[in-house]
Amino acid sequence: MEPVGYRPIGVIRSPHATTDGMPIQAVAAAGARGRVELDPVFAEGLADLEGFSHIVLLYHFHEVREVRLTVTPFLDTASHGVFATRSPVRPNAIGMSTVRLLAVEGTSLVVEDLDVLDGTPLLDIKPYVPQFDDRAGARIGWYTGRVEAVAQTRADGRFR
Amino acid sequence: MEPVGYRPIGVIRSPHATTDGMPIQAVAAAGARGRVELDPVFAEGLADLEGFSHIVLLYHFHEVREVRLTVTPFLDTASHGVFATRSPVRPNAIGMSTVRLLAVEGTSLVVEDLDVLDGTPLLDIKPYVPQFDDRAGARIGWYTGRVEAVAQTRADGRFR
Repeated sequence: MEPVGYRPIGVIRSPHATTDGMPIQAVAAAGARGRVELDPVFAEGLADLEGFSHIVLLYHFHEVREVRLTVTPFLDTASHGVFATRSPVRPNAIGMSTVRLLAVEGTSLVVEDLDVLDGTPLLDIKPYVPQFDDRAGARIGWYTGRVEAVAQTRADGRFR
Repeated sequence: MEPVGYRPIGVIRSPHATTDGMPIQAVAAAGARGRVELDPVFAEGLADLEGFSHIVLLYHFHEVREVRLTVTPFLDTASHGVFATRSPVRPNAIGMSTVRLLAVEGTSLVVEDLDVLDGTPLLDIKPYVPQFDDRAGARIGWYTGRVEAVAQTRADGRFR
C-alpha cells in the first residue's frame, strides 16, 4: 500500500520537557496544563470547538526512533504485543490523548490533563463525544487489575 | 514543521463498498462485520490483543481528496469548524473508530461495528481501555440534542 504523508497542523506545548517522569496517560495528568498552538491558516476549523469540555488530540511521537513489536509497558513486568499496549514505539508512531479544553484563545487552545511531550507535532483535533467513543463493560485484557496503578506510574526512558 | 510519513500496516475489509448509505459512527454500525488484515510482518505485535473486547482503529480516509475548514456534518443543518466535527475532509485525513474485536485469526482480526469503507489503509491498532479513554459528564457542544440521531443517520456523498 502507498505511504501516507501528513503535515503537522500545529504544535503541543506542555510542562513535560522529557519523557522521564511524565504521566503515562491523560487521566493520570490532572493539572498538567499546556497549549495546543494551531497553525493560523487553520483558524476557521476551530469554530464551535469551545462548546466541548474535552478534545481528542492525535499527534506524532516525534522523539521515538525505534519500532518494537513486543514491549514491556509501564504498567506491567511482562511483555505484550505492541498493538495490545499504548507504547509509543509502534510501527506508525501516532499518539492519542483525550484532554480537557479550558479555553480557545485565537488559534491557541488552553488544555489540561496533558500527557504529551513539549514540542510534539499535532496531526488532528477531534471533539470528544462519549456517545460515540465510550463502550460500557469493555474487557481490557492484561490491563485488568493493573490499570488502577496508572495515577502512580510515571514514564521512564525505555521507549525512544 | 516537518512532514510526517506513515506506511499502512494493513487494510480494513468491510461491507461498505461506498460512502453512500454508510453508518456515520461505529456505535451506529451494529452488526457490520469485517476484517482487519494486518501485514504479516507485524504478526508479533498482536500478542495478547485477544483479551480485549474493543480496539481503536486509526486509518487513512483514502477516498477523501478535499480539505474543508468548515463543514455541514451529517447530524446538523448548520455548519461547524471541521475540528469540532468528525468529518473526514480534515487537514490530515485520519479516521478513528472503536470497534468490537470478535476473534484474532492469525494476522486477521474479525471485527464488528465497522463504520469504515472497504479497502481503507490501516495506520494503527490500540487497545480500548475505558479507564483511559472515557470522560464522564463531558460537554458535547453542538452535538447536544443531535447525537441521539446517530443510529438513524446515514452518510451520503458530501465528503470526498
